[in-house]
Amino acid sequence: MTAGISVDLNSDLGEGFGPWSMGDDGAMLDIVSSANLACGFHAGDPVIMTDTAKVAREKGVAIGAHPAFFDLWGFGRRRITGDSPADIEKMVAYQIGALQGVATLAGHRVTHVKPHGALYNMAAADAALAGAIARAIRAVDPGLLFVVLPGSEMERAGHAAGLAVACEVFADRGYLDDGSLAPRGQPGALIHDPEEAAHRTVEMVTAGTVRALSGTMVPVKADTICIHGDSPAAVAMAKAVRSALEEAGVAIRPMHETVGLASSR
Amino acid sequence: MTAGISVDLNSDLGEGFGPWSMGDDGAMLDIVSSANLACGFHAGDPVIMTDTAKVAREKGVAIGAHPAFFDLWGFGRRRITGDSPADIEKMVAYQIGALQGVATLAGHRVTHVKPHGALYNMAAADAALAGAIARAIRAVDPGLLFVVLPGSEMERAGHAAGLAVACEVFADRGYLDDGSLAPRGQPGALIHDPEEAAHRTVEMVTAGTVRALSGTMVPVKADTICIHGDSPAAVAMAKAVRSALEEAGVAIRPMHETVGLASSR
Amino acid sequence: MTAGISVDLNSDLGEGFGPWSMGDDGAMLDIVSSANLACGFHAGDPVIMTDTAKVAREKGVAIGAHPAFFDLWGFGRRRITGDSPADIEKMVAYQIGALQGVATLAGHRVTHVKPHGALYNMAAADAALAGAIARAIRAVDPGLLFVVLPGSEMERAGHAAGLAVACEVFADRGYLDDGSLAPRGQPGALIHDPEEAAHRTVEMVTAGTVRALSGTMVPVKADTICIHGDSPAAVAMAKAVRSALEEAGVAIRPMHETVGLASSR
Amino acid sequence: MTAGISVDLNSDLGEGFGPWSMGDDGAMLDIVSSANLACGFHAGDPVIMTDTAKVAREKGVAIGAHPAFFDLWGFGRRRITGDSPADIEKMVAYQIGALQGVATLAGHRVTHVKPHGALYNMAAADAALAGAIARAIRAVDPGLLFVVLPGSEMERAGHAAGLAVACEVFADRGYLDDGSLAPRGQPGALIHDPEEAAHRTVEMVTAGTVRALSGTMVPVKADTICIHGDSPAAVAMAKAVRSALEEAGVAIRPMHETVGLASSR
Repeated sequence: MTAGISVDLNSDLGEGFGPWSMGDDGAMLDIVSSANLACGFHAGDPVIMTDTAKVAREKGVAIGAHPAFFDLWGFGRRRITGDSPADIEKMVAYQIGALQGVATLAGHRVTHVKPHGALYNMAAADAALAGAIARAIRAVDPGLLFVVLPGSEMERAGHAAGLAVACEVFADRGYLDDGSLAPRGQPGALIHDPEEAAHRTVEMVTAGTVRALSGTMVPVKADTICIHGDSPAAVAMAKAVRSALEEAGVAIRPMHETVGLASSR
Repeated sequence: MTAGISVDLNSDLGEGFGPWSMGDDGAMLDIVSSANLACGFHAGDPVIMTDTAKVAREKGVAIGAHPAFFDLWGFGRRRITGDSPADIEKMVAYQIGALQGVATLAGHRVTHVKPHGALYNMAAADAALAGAIARAIRAVDPGLLFVVLPGSEMERAGHAAGLAVACEVFADRGYLDDGSLAPRGQPGALIHDPEEAAHRTVEMVTAGTVRALSGTMVPVKADTICIHGDSPAAVAMAKAVRSALEEAGVAIRPMHETVGLASSR
Repeated sequence: MTAGISVDLNSDLGEGFGPWSMGDDGAMLDIVSSANLACGFHAGDPVIMTDTAKVAREKGVAIGAHPAFFDLWGFGRRRITGDSPADIEKMVAYQIGALQGVATLAGHRVTHVKPHGALYNMAAADAALAGAIARAIRAVDPGLLFVVLPGSEMERAGHAAGLAVACEVFADRGYLDDGSLAPRGQPGALIHDPEEAAHRTVEMVTAGTVRALSGTMVPVKADTICIHGDSPAAVAMAKAVRSALEEAGVAIRPMHETVGLASSR
Repeated sequence: MTAGISVDLNSDLGEGFGPWSMGDDGAMLDIVSSANLACGFHAGDPVIMTDTAKVAREKGVAIGAHPAFFDLWGFGRRRITGDSPADIEKMVAYQIGALQGVATLAGHRVTHVKPHGALYNMAAADAALAGAIARAIRAVDPGLLFVVLPGSEMERAGHAAGLAVACEVFADRGYLDDGSLAPRGQPGALIHDPEEAAHRTVEMVTAGTVRALSGTMVPVKADTICIHGDSPAAVAMAKAVRSALEEAGVAIRPMHETVGLASSR
């Protein structure tokens, strides 16, 4: 039934800095097919970036830039307002380029871009910000995939810029009837049971639907599944999701293959 | 007599950060043929880097990466020991890539690399450090020119890595009999008179010699002349140097033309 | 007539970082009676802070902490949301303490606190944020003056915390009928003519009123006048303001004298 | 036999930054009597500093400043040269003051200072650097204890500045015949067996001697024992050291009590 179906699993990795590490990158690189690498602004440094890219290459995991606000202390989770879209464009181009630079050392290449934290959340709702990110991606390499929240300003900006976009769904989040994420804090917004997350993920990928909090089945577009790896529980959930997908006959492949495009670079 | 002779003039630009600026980049971009742009580690930020690259493009000035230690406070002038050569390699690749990223936004391309400050001085005398820088350049783009102090470990490392190297002389520094720079603090180590600097520069370029502090004429290899622009006096000296070269019939051209190589990128 | 009237002139100083400077601190320290010193988060470093405090002591200028968001790149002007009031409290206490530490080296002492940039603007309208700042000040030294925008949440929080507050007016800003500042961008929001600024300042200090944009005379409470020094024009205006006050018989004295309180520390 | 003998146990804590943590501070604060808190330059931020100081106060653990070079990426372990002693003095005063500021929020007070990492190692051998640190301590609060390597330039500088010094020995390091630490890398330089470390520590405290690598018994002065807590093995060793001391009848008390001085602040 699901023969020929494939999906990407992506995770935010390389999120240490200097002497500090975060999560179990080694374990996650055995599970995911795409890694979003912090580029030095909210986490990540040249050493961590290069070393993570190297292991990703060895394990056949695609890498993408995970640009963020310049906010190490706040880990890029704080909303920072006051930069013009033109400044954001430059900030994103810097981070993509930096990852490209170290990726060459690791013998790997960058194939996607996914904004991080507050930048992701703000760009999802702000057309000017989303446009700035899309223009930065297109300028640096128009073959890069833009990972977006489906239905967001990011998705629109990606299409408008002529970029290939990868629609992202979340294994561990509740959905509303309009296909948007239930706000954190709302009951059911976060899914903690690995089996439930795995079951929902298989449904999203094979049937193209997700059961919303109201019980209604809602259509979703899942080019890539975001899974977390920043705690032992998160790693366990990631393993459950991957196993369930494989049992359902879904192939796990890097997003630039699932979206059906190869980077031009 | 000097028909056909050409040389590059390079200067360190884009050395502001956030709200702070340094030097008169606008004036210097009318004088030099190559700009070494700070890449965010000792100075420079994505906005300043992009904007300076844009003006450089408009004025026909080549740009290069000016990588440094991660030391904003110390402006990259303090010696930092404790990083392995492998770490330095990653740090340099990051900075080159970051500049390449924003250069694309500016419609320009990076054609050379010149280490900054303490990294330059340390690499001049440290073969392992020089080798790390050369490997980073080669990995990111083997067509990039490596700007080096002639006779230094950097020059040797550049050749060993198969890179094209651009030998750099200084318009405002005194030389010793072995062709090395007189240490700062020694009488005659710094030349303050614009006319004297201009005269010496013409001699270095057209005759291939410089009068050392001892009075001896010493051979020098001058692919590019380093001139400073961080004060009004420095800008005046830069103008004097350029004028004297032009009056002597020397063409001022970007170093990737004077060294006779075009970047492959 | 104005015998016995005195006022403080305050300015934001020490706003360089590492190799970069901003404004003409030397000139301003001959004009103002209080200096708000950047504490390393938006500008300022231990060397600049100590050296500026030393010159302030020599010239009889009081010093205060000028705490900000941790945002060197944005100079503390960008709004950063996501920190709890408890976190803000810790951040402000850190910065006040840091200035106290270096002030002892300079033989000076800290007598006031004025939030900087986005932190000032946000705290003016946000009771929780203003309360956090007031609590930090009280914890570190309850004798410190809290410089506030009159009528703002900061003024209320200062009173609620039992702090002495210094109400601040602006020499170069237009006012609305309710005594608040006209938003930048509105015609008349910024006053560029030094004589006009000087005249208005004298009126605010001696008559306790300011002519609003509508033409109405509005009451103002002026314990301290904020003047800028970040450009030659700003320094010229500062001189004009001071001269006009002196000619009107107003004594220029540090705010901890004009508010009538001495720090307990 | 050992009735009346007491010693301090100190550890470097609060070494996280933003989203990152390091070591098990909670466990260590049940073991040590003094905590050296990172002050934001190599680790630590206002939130971590305040929160760690609060728990230390609750558990009766003394706190001290752990100033370092401004080097988050390198965790203060890299040697940075180029700052003048006067600059180091300002840098140290800033960090002590910052900790004092947040300590007041936590209801605690700073009673000692111990330089971190490369600053510690460089100051041990460099009289000018050691003098700068001692002067900073004396300026900020002459009642602060200066934790030093016995026999080092730091000890001399502390005495010359009129500071009380606390001599520090290491539970897990090998010693040479002259009482200095065996260089890392030399066999026996690091002690990994908790029981051996515990036994040696008891001997250093109760007998005032340590068995050097050569087998010779060497006199040592132990006001405080440095123990690490940055790994589960380190915490286990710390527990073994404390238990052995208590079994030998040695009281564990904060260094400002063991050295017999109370801070004047």
